[in-house]
This record gives sequence, C-alpha cells and structure tokens, in this order.
Amino acid sequence: MAALIKFCFVVCFLVLHVQCDRYEPNWPSIDSRPLPSWYDEAKLGIFIHWGVFSVPSFSSEWFWWTWQGQHLPAVVDFMKQNYRPDFTYADFASQFTAEFYDPLRWAELFAGSGAKYVVFVSKHHEGFCNWATNVSFNWNSVACGPKRDIVGELADAIRSRTKLHFGLYHSLFEWFHPLYLQDKARNFSTRNFVTDKTMPELKELINTYKPDVIWSDGDWEAPDTYWQSTDFLAWLYNDSPVKDTVVTNDRWGIGTACHHGGFYTCSDRYNPGTLQKHKFENAMTIDHYSWGYRRNARLSDFLTMEELISTFVETVSCGGNMLMNVGPTKEGTIIPIFEERLQNMGLWLNVNGEAIYSTRPWAHQNDTVTKDIWYTSKKDNVYAIVLSWPTEDTLVLGAPTPSESTTVSLLGYQSKFTWKKGSTGGMQIDIPPISINNMPCKWAWVFKLTGLTY
Amino acid sequence: MAALIKFCFVVCFLVLHVQCDRYEPNWPSIDSRPLPSWYDEAKLGIFIHWGVFSVPSFSSEWFWWTWQGQHLPAVVDFMKQNYRPDFTYADFASQFTAEFYDPLRWAELFAGSGAKYVVFVSKHHEGFCNWATNVSFNWNSVACGPKRDIVGELADAIRSRTKLHFGLYHSLFEWFHPLYLQDKARNFSTRNFVTDKTMPELKELINTYKPDVIWSDGDWEAPDTYWQSTDFLAWLYNDSPVKDTVVTNDRWGIGTACHHGGFYTCSDRYNPGTLQKHKFENAMTIDHYSWGYRRNARLSDFLTMEELISTFVETVSCGGNMLMNVGPTKEGTIIPIFEERLQNMGLWLNVNGEAIYSTRPWAHQNDTVTKDIWYTSKKDNVYAIVLSWPTEDTLVLGAPTPSESTTVSLLGYQSKFTWKKGSTGGMQIDIPPISINNMPCKWAWVFKLTGLTY
Amino acid sequence: MAALIKFCFVVCFLVLHVQCDRYEPNWPSIDSRPLPSWYDEAKLGIFIHWGVFSVPSFSSEWFWWTWQGQHLPAVVDFMKQNYRPDFTYADFASQFTAEFYDPLRWAELFAGSGAKYVVFVSKHHEGFCNWATNVSFNWNSVACGPKRDIVGELADAIRSRTKLHFGLYHSLFEWFHPLYLQDKARNFSTRNFVTDKTMPELKELINTYKPDVIWSDGDWEAPDTYWQSTDFLAWLYNDSPVKDTVVTNDRWGIGTACHHGGFYTCSDRYNPGTLQKHKFENAMTIDHYSWGYRRNARLSDFLTMEELISTFVETVSCGGNMLMNVGPTKEGTIIPIFEERLQNMGLWLNVNGEAIYSTRPWAHQNDTVTKDIWYTSKKDNVYAIVLSWPTEDTLVLGAPTPSESTTVSLLGYQSKFTWKKGSTGGMQIDIPPISINNMPCKWAWVFKLTGLTY
Amino acid sequence: MAALIKFCFVVCFLVLHVQCDRYEPNWPSIDSRPLPSWYDEAKLGIFIHWGVFSVPSFSSEWFWWTWQGQHLPAVVDFMKQNYRPDFTYADFASQFTAEFYDPLRWAELFAGSGAKYVVFVSKHHEGFCNWATNVSFNWNSVACGPKRDIVGELADAIRSRTKLHFGLYHSLFEWFHPLYLQDKARNFSTRNFVTDKTMPELKELINTYKPDVIWSDGDWEAPDTYWQSTDFLAWLYNDSPVKDTVVTNDRWGIGTACHHGGFYTCSDRYNPGTLQKHKFENAMTIDHYSWGYRRNARLSDFLTMEELISTFVETVSCGGNMLMNVGPTKEGTIIPIFEERLQNMGLWLNVNGEAIYSTRPWAHQNDTVTKDIWYTSKKDNVYAIVLSWPTEDTLVLGAPTPSESTTVSLLGYQSKFTWKKGSTGGMQIDIPPISINNMPCKWAWVFKLTGLTY
Repeated sequence: MAALIKFCFVVCFLVLHVQCDRYEPNWPSIDSRPLPSWYDEAKLGIFIHWGVFSVPSFSSEWFWWTWQGQHLPAVVDFMKQNYRPDFTYADFASQFTAEFYDPLRWAELFAGSGAKYVVFVSKHHEGFCNWATNVSFNWNSVACGPKRDIVGELADAIRSRTKLHFGLYHSLFEWFHPLYLQDKARNFSTRNFVTDKTMPELKELINTYKPDVIWSDGDWEAPDTYWQSTDFLAWLYNDSPVKDTVVTNDRWGIGTACHHGGFYTCSDRYNPGTLQKHKFENAMTIDHYSWGYRRNARLSDFLTMEELISTFVETVSCGGNMLMNVGPTKEGTIIPIFEERLQNMGLWLNVNGEAIYSTRPWAHQNDTVTKDIWYTSKKDNVYAIVLSWPTEDTLVLGAPTPSESTTVSLLGYQSKFTWKKGSTGGMQIDIPPISINNMPCKWAWVFKLTGLTY
Repeated sequence: MAALIKFCFVVCFLVLHVQCDRYEPNWPSIDSRPLPSWYDEAKLGIFIHWGVFSVPSFSSEWFWWTWQGQHLPAVVDFMKQNYRPDFTYADFASQFTAEFYDPLRWAELFAGSGAKYVVFVSKHHEGFCNWATNVSFNWNSVACGPKRDIVGELADAIRSRTKLHFGLYHSLFEWFHPLYLQDKARNFSTRNFVTDKTMPELKELINTYKPDVIWSDGDWEAPDTYWQSTDFLAWLYNDSPVKDTVVTNDRWGIGTACHHGGFYTCSDRYNPGTLQKHKFENAMTIDHYSWGYRRNARLSDFLTMEELISTFVETVSCGGNMLMNVGPTKEGTIIPIFEERLQNMGLWLNVNGEAIYSTRPWAHQNDTVTKDIWYTSKKDNVYAIVLSWPTEDTLVLGAPTPSESTTVSLLGYQSKFTWKKGSTGGMQIDIPPISINNMPCKWAWVFKLTGLTY
Repeated sequence: MAALIKFCFVVCFLVLHVQCDRYEPNWPSIDSRPLPSWYDEAKLGIFIHWGVFSVPSFSSEWFWWTWQGQHLPAVVDFMKQNYRPDFTYADFASQFTAEFYDPLRWAELFAGSGAKYVVFVSKHHEGFCNWATNVSFNWNSVACGPKRDIVGELADAIRSRTKLHFGLYHSLFEWFHPLYLQDKARNFSTRNFVTDKTMPELKELINTYKPDVIWSDGDWEAPDTYWQSTDFLAWLYNDSPVKDTVVTNDRWGIGTACHHGGFYTCSDRYNPGTLQKHKFENAMTIDHYSWGYRRNARLSDFLTMEELISTFVETVSCGGNMLMNVGPTKEGTIIPIFEERLQNMGLWLNVNGEAIYSTRPWAHQNDTVTKDIWYTSKKDNVYAIVLSWPTEDTLVLGAPTPSESTTVSLLGYQSKFTWKKGSTGGMQIDIPPISINNMPCKWAWVFKLTGLTY
Repeated sequence: MAALIKFCFVVCFLVLHVQCDRYEPNWPSIDSRPLPSWYDEAKLGIFIHWGVFSVPSFSSEWFWWTWQGQHLPAVVDFMKQNYRPDFTYADFASQFTAEFYDPLRWAELFAGSGAKYVVFVSKHHEGFCNWATNVSFNWNSVACGPKRDIVGELADAIRSRTKLHFGLYHSLFEWFHPLYLQDKARNFSTRNFVTDKTMPELKELINTYKPDVIWSDGDWEAPDTYWQSTDFLAWLYNDSPVKDTVVTNDRWGIGTACHHGGFYTCSDRYNPGTLQKHKFENAMTIDHYSWGYRRNARLSDFLTMEELISTFVETVSCGGNMLMNVGPTKEGTIIPIFEERLQNMGLWLNVNGEAIYSTRPWAHQNDTVTKDIWYTSKKDNVYAIVLSWPTEDTLVLGAPTPSESTTVSLLGYQSKFTWKKGSTGGMQIDIPPISINNMPCKWAWVFKLTGLTY
C-alpha cells in the first residue's frame, strides 16, 4: 500500500507535474508547504486597521479592552467626559458612518506607495465583521453603521484598479465573545467558539473574497489544538479556492509564533537586525502608538520618512517584508499625513525599487565598517543602501570584495563612481560633492555594486 | 419487560405517590402532562412587548420586517422622512435608553390590575435579547442601549413585590438571522440555528430566570421536528428547574397551534365564543393595532374598558385565560392610558373577582334568551355576568333552572334580588332602579345565583 | 377745547357709530376697554405648552431654570445620568423633531373638547420661538429642530377646521437672555431687552398671526413701565390688526396681576370660589405637576374627570373661564390620556353646555344648604350643577326661591322633576331612582330651574 | 480758536511727546494713524478658522451658504446622503464638541511655526460666536456644543505661553441673520443689525479680549456708512483699551478694501508680486480650497513647503505679511499635516529668520536676471532668497551692485562665497558643490550680501 502511494507520488510529480499529495493537519506537513513566491518578492505591504474602534478613535484599537477589561484610567475618563454614563461599546457602531469611504481611491493610494499587497482587518478582537457575514448577526458593517460590505468593496477595488495582492487580517479570539469566554473558563476543553464562530467565518471569508494572505491574530491565549489550526490550514492548502496562492503567517496558537505556519511575524514590529532562516514580516505602524486611527494623534507620533525607510531597509536586508499600517477614520478617509508617508515611500521606491523588489539577502546584512549601511542582492548585483549620505569624500565599505570589473553606481544618478580597494579588504568609493539638485532622492541612497568577487 | 414497567408505574403512583416516569419527546407523551393548576385559576395575565422595535415605535413591533422584508410604504416613508439614508435597524439599539425603567413600579402596576401572571418578551422576532445572554453577542440589552438585565430585574421585582407568576415569551425564529435563513433555504434540512441559537438561549433563560410560563412564538415556518420542540419540552418537563410549575403554550411548529403543547393560543386574539375542550388563552392587545408601543397611537386605537371586560368575560366563560398586552416606551414607561386600563381592570376585579378567579365554565357559556350575558361557576355558585345593565325592570335568564332555595345577589351590592321562575323555564330577576351611587362598578355586573338545580 | 372733544365724541358715537377716541398708554385708559364679548361666552379654552423643554420632558417646563438656575438635585442628577457632561440646554433643540405634529388633528381634538379657544405657547421663558421669527436668530422652530412654523401651521389649522378662537401665550422675560440679565442687573433702568427683543417679537406675532388672545407672562420681576406694557396695549387696542377682537390678560409687570389689563389670571390655577368683580381665567393643568409634557408622568398625576369638571364648574359659577392645559410630546403627539380627558370634557359639554356657554354668574355661586352644587344662569334660567349625584331621594336647594311656575328638569333627561318649597325657604326636588342607563352623563349633573322668583 | 488747537498740538507733540489729538470718524483721519510697528516686523501670522462649519467639515467654511443660499449640488447631495431630511444648520451646533481643544498646545504649535501673531475667527458669516457673548443668545460656543469660551481660552494660552500677538477675525455681516436681511432689503437705509448686533459684539470682543488685530470681513454688500466703520475705528483708536497697539485691516464697506483702514488685504490670497505703497497682508490657506477644515481633504489639496515658502518670500519681498490659515477639526485638533507645515515653517525661519523678521523691501523685489530670487533688506544687508538651488556653478544676480567690500554668505552655512562683478552689472557668485549634509535647509536658501553700493 505504502509502495503504491509512493508510486503515485512519483507519477504525479515526475510525469504529470501536478501535486497529488495533500497536506495533513499536523505542523510538519503544514510547514512543508513552500511559500508562494510572490510574497517574498513583494517586500512591502500595507496593513489597514478599521473597525468600531475607529469611532472613539482614542488610545488605540484596543479601546474596548482598555476601557472595560483593563479599566485604564485615561480611557475610563475619556468615556466619562464625553458620553452618557450608560453608553456601551456596541453603541458606537451606529456612528461608524464611512461616508467618505472610497475604495478605488484607497487602491490608488496603496498602489502609489510601491507596496505589492494589502492586508485589511476583516475582524479585530472586538469581533465586528467588516463584511456581509452570516456569522456575526447585527455586529457587522452591513447591518450596522456603514451599511456596506467593506471587505468586498475593497477587494474589488484593489483587483480592478491595481496589481496588488489582497489579504485579510483575522482575529481568532474576541475579547468579550461569550462563547469564547465560556471555552476559556473551561480551560479550552470545549471549543464551541471555534466550531460555531471562528471556523465558519474564516471559511466564509476565504470562499467569498479569496484572499492572498490570511493574517491570523488573537491566538495567544489558547493552544493551536483549540483553534483547530492545522485542520484549517490543511483545508486552506488542499481544498480552498486560494490553495495555490495564499500565504499565511504564524499566529495559530500558543507557541506557534516564530515556529509554525507561513511567514513568521513573531511579535509586532519584529525587526531582528540579523539574517533570518525563515521568511518573516515586520508588521509595524506609521503611528508609533496605535494601529487604529487616533483622532488626537500628533505629528510627533508618526514615524518620519527616515525612520520608515530605515526600518524598511533593515527589514528587507535581513530577509523580511515590511507590513506598514495605516488606520482610516470612521468617515473612511486616510488622513493626509498617512497619505504623505505612503506617497513618499512610493517616490523612494520609484528610484530604488531595483534594490528592494525580488531581492535576496546578501552574504552580509550590514556593513562591517561603516554603520547604517544595509545590503541586498539580486542576480550578480549587490546593493549597499546608505541611510545617511556620506559626510566624508570617501565611503568605506568593509563587506564587499571587489573584482577588477566591479562598477559602482548610485541608483537614480547618471554617472559611475570611482573606487579603489581598501587597504585591509573592502573598498573605498569616492564621493564627489553632488548638488542637492542632482540627488536622486531625499532619504537613503543605494549604491549598486556589480562584479564583486564576494 | 413491559409488565415490569407497568408494575413499576403502579408502585410509583399507588404506593409511593410520586411520579417516576418521564415524559418522552413525542406529542402523546408531552400532551399527557396535566397543566399546573395555578394557570387555570389565574384567568388574567399581562403581556409585555418591549424591544428595539420600541425605539422607532411606529407601525408595530414588526417594524423591521415591514420596513425591510415587506417594504410597506408607510414604514419605508417613515424612515426616509426621519433618518439618514443608511440608517440600519441595528442602529436603533443605542437609542433604547430605558432611563425610566422601574421594574418595582411595573410590578405594582401589574399586580394592581388583578392579573395573576405576567409574560414578558425576552426576545422577539428581531432577535434582540432582553437579558444578560451568552448567545446573542452585542445584540442584547446589556451590551447595547439599556445596559441592563431587563428580564432579570423584572423577575426579581415581580417576585419580591407581588405574588404574580413570572413568564417569558420567546420567539423561536428570527426574521433576519443568517443561520435561520440558511436552514430555511435548505428547507429546514439543517438545524444549525436551533442547535446554536434557539436551544442554548431557551435553556439559558429557563435556568437563569426560572419562568413559570414559556410562551413560544415564531414557529410557523418550520415543523416542530426542525425546532426539536418535543425534545425541549421533555427536558422542560423532566429535568428543568421549573418542571413542576411551568406552563407552555402551543406554538411549537407548523400545525401544533391548537393541537399540541400546554394551553392553546391558536391564533392571536383567539376568542372562540364557545366552550373549548382544551385550556386556551386569548392573547390580545389593549392597543388594537400593535403589541409594541406606537408613539403616534390615538385614544381611539385603545380598547375601551367595555371592550376589555367584554372580551375578558367571554374568554373566561369559555374556559380561557386572557393575556392582555401593553407595550412600554423606549424610555421604560407604561403610558397613562395603559395604566388607566390596568387600574380599572383591577377595580373591576376587586368587586367581581369572585366570578372570575378559580372559576370553571358552566353548563352554558352565554344566556339562551338575553344577549351579552356570560356565565362562570365555582362550587355551587353560578355567576351571570351582565355586560349591559338591564334596560327593563326584569332581567330574563334562559339558561339557569332555579330551585326553591335559589338566591340572587349582585356582587358588590348589599341586598338580595327577588326573582321568579320563567314561564317557559329559566328565571326572571326583578331589577329595581338603583341609584348610580349604589352601583358596585361601572362596567359589567355580576349576578350570583345559588342553589340552582341545573 | 374739552368741550370740542366731548362734542366730537358725541358725534362719533351717536352719529357716525364709530369709535373715534383712542386708548392712551396708561392703566385707566387701557382698563376702560370693554372685553370683547366672545371671551366671556367661551368659558373653556385649551392651553398648549410646547417647546425645547418638551425634549428633556422631565420635571417641568421650567427644566432649564431648575437645572442651571436653581440646581434642583433631581434635575441635575437626571442630566448627569443621561447626557454627556458638557451637554447644554441649547443642544436639546436639535432633538425637538415634531415628526408627528399634525395641526389639523390637534384642531379637531381641541374642538371636540367643547373648548371655544386655544392659547398656544409661542415662546416660553426659555426664549425659543415656535414661529418663523426675525427676532430670535437660530433659536426658533424653523431654524432648529422641527424646521416648521409651528404657530403658523396651528393658526391655519384652527381657523380652517374649527370655529375656535386662536390665542398666543408669550413670555415677556427670558431666564437667561443676556440682554434681559443686563437690564435686570441695572435694576431695569435700561430696557434694551424690551426694545430689541420683546416688543419686536410681540408685534411680529400679532401682525403675522392675528391672535385673538395675548396671554402675557414672565412679567413679575420688573414693573410694567420697564415692559412698556401700556404703550404696547394702547397700540394693540388702537392700531393692531386685532384691535377689535383681541383679549389680553393681566400679567404686564409687578403688581398688575389681578389689577390691570383684560381678564385677570391673578396666579396660576386661580380658582377663588367666590364671585369676582372682574372677569377672570383659571389657567390650570391636566397634569397636576407640569405644563410641559413629562415623559415619566403617571396616571395619578393627571386630574380625574371629576376633578376637572368640578374645577370647571366652580370656575364658571364664579364668573371665570377655565384654560385647561395639555403638553404635547417632542414628537408632536398629544398622549391618549390627554385625549381622553379632552374627549370626555366634550361629551359632558354636549349634554350640559347649555349651563355653561354664555351663562352669567347667578345671585348665588354655590348652594347655601347642600354642598358641591354650583349655579349659573342664562336669561330666566338658573342651572344648579350637582357635582355628586344625590344620595337621598330629595335634593334640598337652599339658594333658589321658586315660583308657582317653576319647573325643574335635568339636562339630557327627558322628564321633568317634581319639587316642593322648602320649609325654611329654598326648594326640595324629588329624586327618583334613575337607572344607570338613563343617566345623561357620568359626572356632574345639571338641574335646570325656570321661573324662579329669585 | 484754530490757533489755540494748533498750539495745543505743538505743545503735545513737541513738548509732552504724547498724542493729544483724537482721530475723527472719517477716512482721512482714520487713515492717518501710523500702523503700530510690531505688525510690519512680524511678517508671519497664523489664521485659524473654527466654527459650526467645522462640524459638517465639508466643501468649505461657506457650507451653510452653499447649501441653503446657493444650493450647490455637491453640498445639497451631501446633506441628503448623510442627514435626516429636516436637519438644519443650527442642529450641527450640538455636535461641535471640541473635546480635544487644548489651547496651550495650540499656542506652542503656533509659536513653533515662527509666526509672530495669530488671528482667530471669533465669528464667521454663520454668526456663531466663539466666546461668552451677551449678543448672540444660544448661538455661541458657551451655550451650545463646546460649552467653552473658546476665544478667551486661546487668548490666555497665547499670552501666557508665547510672545505672539493675539488678534481676532470678525465678520460684519451674517448670511442669514434676519436683522441684517431686513436692513439689506431696505437697501441699507436702516442699520438695526449694526446697532443691535455688530457694534455691541465688536466692542464686547475688544473690551473683553483686548486683541492686537481686528481682522474685519463680510463687509462687501454694504457701504462703510452702513457699518458705521469710521465711528468704530475712531473709538478703537481713541478710546478702546487697545488703542495703542491694535492693527486693523481694510474690509470696512464697499470700496474700502485696498483703500482705507490699517494694512490692506485687498482680496483673499493677495500676492501682488510688486512692491506695494501700503502695508499689505497676504491672507492665504494651507488647504488650497478651504479656510475651514474639510474632513475629506487630500494631501494634494495642501500647499507643499515649496509653495508655502515661495509665497511667503514673495509676499515679504513686496512689503507684505503672510497670514497662513489652518482649520481645526470639530474635536479641537489641528491635524498632523497642518502641524508638519507649521513645524517646517519654523525650521526654515530658525535658519533664515534674519532675512525675514523686521526686514524692509529692497530697491528690487526680484532679480532682474535670474528668476525665483526675491530680495529683502535690513540695515546695510540685502538678502537674496533663492527658491531653487542654482543648477550651475555660478549664480548670476542682476539687481545688486557690489562694492569692493561686499561679502556673500549663505544663512546657516559657515563659509563665505567668492564672487565677481558681472560683465554687464550685477554680480556672479561662485556656487561650489555642497553636500546635502551641509545644506542649511531643505527649501529656499538665503544669500546675505553686505556692503552693496546699491
């Protein structure tokens, strides 16, 4: 029997060139699936957190929990000052108006940033479903507030207007869902919440919107066996309509983060600074302090372009993607400061995308001599991404070993640069004074090195 | 084996005087249960319809359906005239404020009406749960709007302040619940809605609030096998905390109304006018047109005291109870016109309760000669309830056959009445002129007849 | 000169039959104007208090003052419990929706009560103008909330659908108007508020809506000289479009109540119980505790029909009119309990109006022997209005002195009553037992006495 | 007599060094007043438009007019889509919550921009008063919405936290004020609006908040004689508490703009490009399309830093001040994109303020040879402000005539620049390549020229 199966595999792979085996609901099998290649090539994604938390739009998208779970004084006081005493979190939903929500405009904005995929919050820990769901009665964006299929409209816009991949964030748990709280009170010996809520809604999402990413979250209180994660992933990889293209992350139960699943997210804002063995994603926010929009956020709360590009370059050098988050307003706008960051990222990638998209980590991630220089590579080229423009007339690189035929150019700049070998290895690039008018971009410059011997 | 069981029964009943058999989940067994006696003795109950429909408070408690199911022009126009275009039904919930809800006051008001039980809408077809439920996330009175356990507070008030029995209305189906709509689309070949929603919430209600009545509704689209009604009732009668006291009605699936269950409600405002073989209840409304409160209801929409008492007397004569409905406002008040009707009913029953409570139908329900006279009986007494005060000086009764010792009195009036036998049977009661000051009540007077031979 | 004027008068009155003199702005002249006869004949009016106070609809129409002037704990607490901390009184205005306001229906309702005039609150002490005014920018019913000319619509409806006279209540002062507070702080030595606000709006009201009654209020803090009352009244009586028909009351400044103006109101709910020398009006409320609608009013807060008719009869006997108040809801409805009281009043007047309309006080107001009997008269008839039906078979009247030809009848009853002279004066009417079916009404019965010698 | 007055003047001016004459209410006298010197030295002010228009926050601060005066389809549709049919403009006021309004933070933000004064909208054409006024009952920020003295809080914050001058914008007319509309309908032959509303509120503002600027607007429909402008200004200059420090603009009636008053604003965004004989102010907006905040404004709607600085430099070169407008949200925040522009303006002025503050126009405003170069001067220094960094290695200036001792430096840069005389006049400055690291700022660079002969 085993021989027969083996024979079948051989026939399938070698003769028919199709996959005829199926993933099994266990981690070794699930983890054996190769990551669809589009994901590693993409490097930059846009994360969007939108929900009922965008109505109070204060503190963070964890508003409900900080208010009524944690009783954070700032949040409790905010409610006391601004609402009638018996106002509830659910009462916010009718104020989630989304009157300016224009998914085609969002699509253009995201495409303009140079990102290659988006990950949209379909449902956060509050449980509010941003789509036309059968699983969350009267707690979704069609039955309350916007009266619109937010996920569906965005999926259509992204696909019709751009080439971006469309992905969905989904929270496994919900802070206050009674079924979940019951299962939890029983130490997860029952899984009514998973059976009646989580799995049906995940499958509904996938069958309806066919996302290219399932970005799972909210897993950390229970083991993956509670969540039936490997069953779900086996279905996703074997039988779902997105089985060939979908990528997932690693948040599937206690201990899975950084260990199992598709790409690793490990923890929020994961930026290890060293080469990773497994594909990872640095999910981070343009607003330092929140994933959801905060009406009272200040300019100093937003990462500068220098910080954004620095983080991005470091992440890519070490093998990661960056998933950069914006939080829309309850009205459906993405405020101009976010728009500026996205647009500037797009300007930078227009010049420097060659050093980013479809690259691979190089032998070195950062330079051995000069700091704030990160490397990527593609084919025979190595890209030295310099976060600060050299203050001296020579840029010393310790990592590359040039050959005779090595050339040095600056992406977006017309002339080649002269260089010489370093006395103790590496190379020294001559940096002439360049007028501000001729600088190819405003932040982080890329030296392209060809013909290195190493 | 059969012999053994039979033997056991005999032992149980005759020797031990306990019930040791259990009801089985089939109608013959369920129907064999005797109705707890309190119910037939009670005669008058108060029905209370309160929910999110009390916010628009227009048209009827079927507002959602008439708006978005049926597209009734009056309701569609009402929404267009008074709300923003994308306003949803769920958006009403945050305006269900209940700031004046005072269950102790309600309890006194209901007790003052002479009613012996209340039936409170725990959940209507809209699906909004008026209690602290684990089954309807963010669509209940604790999570939205009132932020109160409405059912629990009323149960406590009724029990601490009055001797009334506390019952609960519950709708099996929900117009727009996606699980229900799915089951329905499959011709009820699946019953996910029943398993995940209906049964858990019914049991939660019963275990938490221990109601004396389960007043089921919303059954009519599906067979009782879909609803698992006999299973539920077997549990209710065998194992629930209210197994000895609870009464139920007959709305358990297509074809059950008027045929199976506890008391029969048959159809709304069921008032057959003839003696019924099975205990029934006339569930009716003080507002002609609606069970829920209508903000624009006019005086002429409310039944007069004459109509209420006439309906009540007719119902009781034929063996029924009357369940008289009031609809509170979204603020939690019961408007004065309802209060007046309840208070007047109490005044009438203070005088005439002897002819109502714990009575049984008599041989005749209404008189054979004079119209608008209805009979009840208790022990040896027969009560002739006269809806209109006699216009002649003799009241001719065709139904009773007097004996020598027969006496005639008027409840609430000090003197006996003289009478003589009718020429062709029956009896003739002499009606003296009675000053308005001496009339025992304002509507419907009761002649008590003793010592009849028939 | 004086002779010439006198001669002019003579010519005017006797020859030309026109009034050629003019009222002068002083009390003797103003007070000399005869009250237009329709008013005394009318006897019953309906008072309507509607405004922004109908939105909180709690405590009373003095809500704003009790909240922020007086800091009444119940009102302060109500706001704390139900509104955000910074909610202001003006913020209520946008919730004054009036969606069910149907002035034609109101007109029918008022006419059905038997009233002959209405007095509608055009502006209460809050200053909110219920009409399309040029004097109160953005604090009126067209610019805020209802977006309707409430006064104008009601005036049209009353005039097109009924024969009732249309009058307007108007508050001279406003609790919180800064111009008024400035004048007050200067001990009313300035009158900017009167010049810029009160007078323009009063004249606007009169010129636009031509009311038959100006029911002034809010005068009590300042002398009539501050209010320029006599100037206004001289204009009203000499030059206004309603100079021939309008009646006014007596609230025109400190000390004017019960002393100057048209009819006297003296104080709220003025019911002296003795014959008054000057025509007066008993302005009272069906809700004991408030002129504005209270959402949480209970049945026991409303006057019973017995109380209403008793008050009415007593008032009319002593020469007064009764102005009976209802408070509509913010939605524009008049709740059924008010409707019932109005309708019952109409039923009573249908039978007994002969003893009310166009009557004059008789020599006696109430009987000298039997209590709860009040008299009116018209032509040669005297009406003894008996609040409680006689408990004995003889009704003893001490006040009337019968003649040979005196007849006694009961309004609404077909037969005459026999009577005899009282042993010590007065008369004794024989009261036969009358079946409830033959009683002409439910409350207060009228014996009509003809041919009295006194 | 005339001689005596003249003598008095001579004594006053020459001997006592005080002004003892008084301005008269006519333009020659009013216009003769010297502008207080602080204003010309300040160069940059911040304009803030906040009001009820910030609640719909759509289209522009002219929302009310475009909706109900002009019936602009986009605005009419916006209302139809998002509000109930009878929603009024005044109904917006209760949603003007200002919960995040933090005037100390605003003060710091404005100071950080390098501006030397602010002009805050006390009342726009809608008539809503942002202060604790006695003149606009229930249509002001204390009685409605914020429940705060917005003007007073900002005045205190600006004065306690910064050295900025505090000014107030004030609209003479109001689109829909009935008193104004009456005067207008009478061709301004009456001026009740001015007497009762405009003048009292202007004087209240000035006496209470002592502003350093009165920025008048809304004058254009009526002559200055209607507005009593010269009377007001004579009072302001002679007797008001700010008579010595206040500056005003030129919007005081038909034909006054660009002709009378203090500084000239002429028209919005006035940027003449040539030297002006009279001090002027370029009042402009960072959002191209609106002075009030627009919730749906896009990044491309905001002026870039290049545009802002270019406009500023051109304005100052020609003798003007720039008044740069931001529109806060209804919550009281100034969104980050505004904050970024303000902060960047401050960064630029930190380096280049020497060429701006207290400067005077030079003989030339812009260069005669090279475009995009604007000049200012202070003492013996001339500043050539270069909007685009030279693309050649020589910067040719046509306007200046150097002397032997002329030096050329770049503000914020350590070294002097070499130069030579131009062949046909002017001078040629050698521009070495400067590394981006050494550039003193990102936009517009200032060459300081000393010792010019012309």
